[in-house]
Amino acid sequence: MIELTLIGIGTGNPQHLTLQAVDALNAQDLILIPNKGAGKDDLAGLRRQICDRAIRGAGPQIIEFDLPIRNEATTDYRRRVDDWHDAIAEIWWQNITANLPDTGGKVGFLVWGDPSLYDSTMRIADRLLTRAAFTISVIPGITSIQALTAGHAIPLNEINGPVVITTGRQLRDHGWPEGADTVVVMLDGTCSFQTLDQDGVQIWWSGFAGMPEEITLSGPLSEVCQTIIDTRAQARADHGWIMDIYLLRR
Amino acid sequence: MIELTLIGIGTGNPQHLTLQAVDALNAQDLILIPNKGAGKDDLAGLRRQICDRAIRGAGPQIIEFDLPIRNEATTDYRRRVDDWHDAIAEIWWQNITANLPDTGGKVGFLVWGDPSLYDSTMRIADRLLTRAAFTISVIPGITSIQALTAGHAIPLNEINGPVVITTGRQLRDHGWPEGADTVVVMLDGTCSFQTLDQDGVQIWWSGFAGMPEEITLSGPLSEVCQTIIDTRAQARADHGWIMDIYLLRR
Repeated sequence: MIELTLIGIGTGNPQHLTLQAVDALNAQDLILIPNKGAGKDDLAGLRRQICDRAIRGAGPQIIEFDLPIRNEATTDYRRRVDDWHDAIAEIWWQNITANLPDTGGKVGFLVWGDPSLYDSTMRIADRLLTRAAFTISVIPGITSIQALTAGHAIPLNEINGPVVITTGRQLRDHGWPEGADTVVVMLDGTCSFQTLDQDGVQIWWSGFAGMPEEITLSGPLSEVCQTIIDTRAQARADHGWIMDIYLLRR
Repeated sequence: MIELTLIGIGTGNPQHLTLQAVDALNAQDLILIPNKGAGKDDLAGLRRQICDRAIRGAGPQIIEFDLPIRNEATTDYRRRVDDWHDAIAEIWWQNITANLPDTGGKVGFLVWGDPSLYDSTMRIADRLLTRAAFTISVIPGITSIQALTAGHAIPLNEINGPVVITTGRQLRDHGWPEGADTVVVMLDGTCSFQTLDQDGVQIWWSGFAGMPEEITLSGPLSEVCQTIIDTRAQARADHGWIMDIYLLRR
C-alpha cells in the first residue's frame, strides 16, 4: 500500500504552514519536490526551506526531480495539459518505486497554496491509482485568495453576495462573469483586467501574495490599471518570475 | 494606538492553525472571545481550547463576552444585520477600553475559517475606526471550502473552469448561478440543493467539515439528496447545532 499525501503549504510564507501540515511532513517516508526549471527556482527552494524548518530529527527522505516540459506543439490546450500530467505521473512512479520498499510507504508532496485550487497535483495523483494500491489524502493549505484578501484586509464577499473565482483566460474570452459583482482572477499572465469595461470597477491586486516580496495595489480600475501593468512587468523583471492574483468588485 | 488582529483559526480542527496564527495569538495583549449562546457553546469552547494549546507562558488576557441577539422584528435582512453589527462593535469597544491601558495595545479575535469569507468580524472592526486610532490586520485561515475539498479529496475547479461561491439564500432565490459548472454553497440552513433540477448534478456534502465529527456524503444529487437531508437533521439533533457546506458540479 502506498499512501500519497498532498500537503498544502500556503503561498510562500513559511508561516502559512498549518500544525496539521507540519505533522504530515514529519510523518512521511519520502517527500518528492519538483524543480520547475529556470526562473522558478524560488519555488523549489521554498519547499526545501519549509522542509528544513518543519521536519524534526532525521525525517523523511527528500528527493528532487525535474519536471518535464509541456509540448507546446500540441495545439489543443486540454490535450497538452493531459499529456504533461501523464508525463509527470510517470516520473512520480519511477521515483516512488525507486525509493520506497516493495511493501509501500508514505509519500508526501508539498503543494503551493491548497491542493484543490487551480493545482494539478490531485489530477496527477489520480493517474497512479491504477498502478498499485494507493490512497490519497489532502491536507488543506492557505490559498492565494486568502493571502490576497488578508494583505488588503478586505472581505472576499459582500453580505450574502456570491463570488466567482476564475482564470485570466476565462476573463479574456468571456468578459465579466454573469451573476456576481465580485470576481477573483487567478492564472492571468497578461493582465486581462485591461480588456474589461473599467467603469465602476474597483481592483485589489497582489503580486507575490503572502511572501516577503508582496506588492499590493488597489483603487478604481480606470485609475490604477496602467500602474498595475507597469508594476507587474517590473517585478517580473526583478525576480525572474511573478505570481499574481486580483479581486474585482463593481 | 489600538492594533486589532483578526486571526483565522480554520474550521474547528485545532491542527488547522497556521504557524503565523500561533505567533499572532501569543503577540496579543488582549483576546476577546464571543459566547454565541445555547447550542453553539462548542465554538467558544473551541476558541478557548485553541488558546490553551497555542499560547505559551502567561500570554494575553482572555475576555469572553455575550453576543447580543439579532432583532428578528426588523424585517429588512440587511438592516437587521447592520444593527446587530453595530451592537457587537459597541460591546467590543466597552471590553477594549475596560481592559487595555489608555495608551492602547494589541487586541486579537479568533475568527472561524478565514476572516474574509462570509464572516462579519472585519465589518464590525471597521465600525471602530472612527472611535480611536485603530489599525486592522488579518491573518488568513483555512476555510470550510478547503476543509470540504480536502475531506473529499476533490479539486475545487475543473481545468481552467470558474467556480461560484454562494449562499443557500442565493441558490433558493436565483437557482443555479449562470456561467459556472461548479458551485460551492455556504450558510444554507434549509438544504437549498433540493430546489434545483437534479438531473446531471453531483454533490459533495460535509457536515462539521474539518472537525472530528466530520460527516461526508457524495454522489448524484438525485440519489443522495434525501440521505443528506436526513443525515443533516439527525446530526443537528445529536449535536444541538450543525455547520455544513457542499459543492455541486454539473
